[in-house]
Amino acid sequence: MEVSLIAYTPEPERTVAAAARLCYSSQDPHKLLDGMNEEKAVALVSKLTAMGHFSPFEHVSFTFAINGISRATSHQLVRHRIASYSQRSQRYVGEENFDYVIPPSIARNEVLRDKYETLMAEIAQVYAQLASSVPAEDARYVLPNACETAIVCTFNTRSLYNLLAHRLCLRAQWEIRNVAEKMLEQVRAVAPTLFAEAGASCETTGICPEGSYSCGRIESIKNRNGAES
Amino acid sequence: MEVSLIAYTPEPERTVAAAARLCYSSQDPHKLLDGMNEEKAVALVSKLTAMGHFSPFEHVSFTFAINGISRATSHQLVRHRIASYSQRSQRYVGEENFDYVIPPSIARNEVLRDKYETLMAEIAQVYAQLASSVPAEDARYVLPNACETAIVCTFNTRSLYNLLAHRLCLRAQWEIRNVAEKMLEQVRAVAPTLFAEAGASCETTGICPEGSYSCGRIESIKNRNGAES
Amino acid sequence: MEVSLIAYTPEPERTVAAAARLCYSSQDPHKLLDGMNEEKAVALVSKLTAMGHFSPFEHVSFTFAINGISRATSHQLVRHRIASYSQRSQRYVGEENFDYVIPPSIARNEVLRDKYETLMAEIAQVYAQLASSVPAEDARYVLPNACETAIVCTFNTRSLYNLLAHRLCLRAQWEIRNVAEKMLEQVRAVAPTLFAEAGASCETTGICPEGSYSCGRIESIKNRNGAES
Amino acid sequence: MEVSLIAYTPEPERTVAAAARLCYSSQDPHKLLDGMNEEKAVALVSKLTAMGHFSPFEHVSFTFAINGISRATSHQLVRHRIASYSQRSQRYVGEENFDYVIPPSIARNEVLRDKYETLMAEIAQVYAQLASSVPAEDARYVLPNACETAIVCTFNTRSLYNLLAHRLCLRAQWEIRNVAEKMLEQVRAVAPTLFAEAGASCETTGICPEGSYSCGRIESIKNRNGAES
Repeated sequence: MEVSLIAYTPEPERTVAAAARLCYSSQDPHKLLDGMNEEKAVALVSKLTAMGHFSPFEHVSFTFAINGISRATSHQLVRHRIASYSQRSQRYVGEENFDYVIPPSIARNEVLRDKYETLMAEIAQVYAQLASSVPAEDARYVLPNACETAIVCTFNTRSLYNLLAHRLCLRAQWEIRNVAEKMLEQVRAVAPTLFAEAGASCETTGICPEGSYSCGRIESIKNRNGAES
Repeated sequence: MEVSLIAYTPEPERTVAAAARLCYSSQDPHKLLDGMNEEKAVALVSKLTAMGHFSPFEHVSFTFAINGISRATSHQLVRHRIASYSQRSQRYVGEENFDYVIPPSIARNEVLRDKYETLMAEIAQVYAQLASSVPAEDARYVLPNACETAIVCTFNTRSLYNLLAHRLCLRAQWEIRNVAEKMLEQVRAVAPTLFAEAGASCETTGICPEGSYSCGRIESIKNRNGAES
Repeated sequence: MEVSLIAYTPEPERTVAAAARLCYSSQDPHKLLDGMNEEKAVALVSKLTAMGHFSPFEHVSFTFAINGISRATSHQLVRHRIASYSQRSQRYVGEENFDYVIPPSIARNEVLRDKYETLMAEIAQVYAQLASSVPAEDARYVLPNACETAIVCTFNTRSLYNLLAHRLCLRAQWEIRNVAEKMLEQVRAVAPTLFAEAGASCETTGICPEGSYSCGRIESIKNRNGAES
Repeated sequence: MEVSLIAYTPEPERTVAAAARLCYSSQDPHKLLDGMNEEKAVALVSKLTAMGHFSPFEHVSFTFAINGISRATSHQLVRHRIASYSQRSQRYVGEENFDYVIPPSIARNEVLRDKYETLMAEIAQVYAQLASSVPAEDARYVLPNACETAIVCTFNTRSLYNLLAHRLCLRAQWEIRNVAEKMLEQVRAVAPTLFAEAGASCETTGICPEGSYSCGRIESIKNRNGAES
């Protein structure tokens, strides 16, 4: 899997901060922007995050190129509706030599892994036979969820926070959690303050929307915070 | 495939018409609604459609239960973002006895159909073996696009018009076109005037956004219209 | 101010519950719906609310006719983007005899109230003069924020929860808080379980996104809850 | 009125073109981007525009700071829901010395202009009196639609096309049409190919969604095109 930040709104924190200041200021927006240096921007963005005032975060968006994820995961990804997607099409692109993802739980078991790989080879063979007789869009019906895809996607910061809150949860599946981790790593590299508070709900709010019953992370957060105080 | 309209805003045309009238009237909205009989509503909705004033159409929404479509098609369906979805999850529901869709181009060729069905049986077998050792969410990586799913989805009228414009186009794939046809049939049964002008772009505007190069339908529409006049 | 629920998806709780069940069930959606009686629906909706699983709530939408609110408030209302609006237009509807809202803080002070009403009368007079010479869309530039408007708006349940969380907060302005209270009252009358947990953030989560500094309500909630336990 | 493009996704045309290519290519998205020079990007974006394939256009967004528009116009602007806004708040910012817009139809008539300006001065005076006794959020009820505001807004390219199609129509009001013209001018300066086909519906499609009855522009377009051929 490869996740790369290929484009984003320049000077993300300064842009957000200038927009946020406008709501509470009688100054000309152009002057606001001129007067907004890095230091002031960082201070204001931190305050916005602390107060949960996320609407100015929407002015900044991030575009990722993602490669080598399964169609199982892209199906989960595109369910985030406040975002834009361009995905490699199995209707128009032949998949004769498709690559595929192997879940770690299968990869580490030699017997299962063998069965899995053998099946993938067979699917590829049948796909090739079908694709020589019927349209690619029909041949693809045999392709597995494991089949790798590529997708370019764009999220504004607020929508990305939402994705991260859901997909960094330990109950999210390992593959999309992996995508989310890489996204967060990359946006934090260019906008550390903007994403200082992004993460799973339990990490950011101390609340588990799944009802705490499952993963134990919230207890470890509480213990850690208890130990800190 | 089964597509059923399981819920919708009552009195769709009267609701749209009352909302539309409000924009151009100084009357109390409650009086507007009281004074809006079926006949007036139909006349006003027709006028809105003719003028392309679709915003009041959003006040009415339609909920469908869809069963027996492939995951290939559900992946296309959920790309419509101004809509709501609840889909059967392959993470939580076992697929040991999954049903599958066979594209007609394959079904009508005995040799291809045999290969296809044999492969599906093998996939089911490997899935069952995997699912007894690893979580369902990992076992599902072998499941094919053909695997049947069920989904409940809700569209407002304007968003549904957009879906129909794209998915009734002859360049849309047969399966989602089939879904779109059934949707249109069902909403027309309860709101004929509201959907009088819904359809593929060529049918409704005489313009082919695909550049006319492909299907010939636009020529047949022009001929038909020519013959009519 | 008049807020009326003029249309909504029938059987709201049963519809939500059936959609939610689908995600975790291998049953046919049509059978799910048949098997979903009132009692089961109520139990499942309560569970969804408790777990914060709000996506199935989107399948149900509510349409309100609102009359006699100020343009100040309609400007706030239409900022909720996951919703649909049809508003009386000051471009096309003459406002010679416009009604207006008086904020209570002004209404209860006789001196201020007099000034306010005198000004409104003057504005009406100038508007009438302008409207006899220039288009209504230009004459309306003198109309005040206080000017009453009418609007039909539709929200799905999830988006309505969001509106209520923000606009029932004591820091929201009195007029839109009043709109939100009336909305909640009306939807609770027809879908009590669906809206059992709707309200300001402090009431529903115990967290004040405004930083607790302002209204004191969160302390009273904590005391109340303490007293209860 | 001042409209400035304060931020946008860098290399807009190259970003759109790389995303669009991905849908129809088996190449790694990172290689696609590397191989996408300016010339190829321009050619591909032109093709997308001609075919109406606008979804890759969403990956690029534009942020404007707008100053000195009336609240009448900002109310129209924020009705575009696929966009992000940060607006100067009349709840938190005092408007004792508010600036205001004068519609040209009023400005060019001395008598009307006098009445208008006198009324504005009176409103300012009453506002100041109110604001010294009641909260700014209540005092603002007397402020006129003409009152100037400032707003930062972000649109992706596709949503901006939609705004331009509606607001460059000659039936749009002069002030928001003026905003739209300035937006188009500024985005064309940085992404000429991307916006080559943006404009009012009649200019881009030859179809008048208002039913041709009003402005005569479509006839002049037809004549112009006739003369060209």
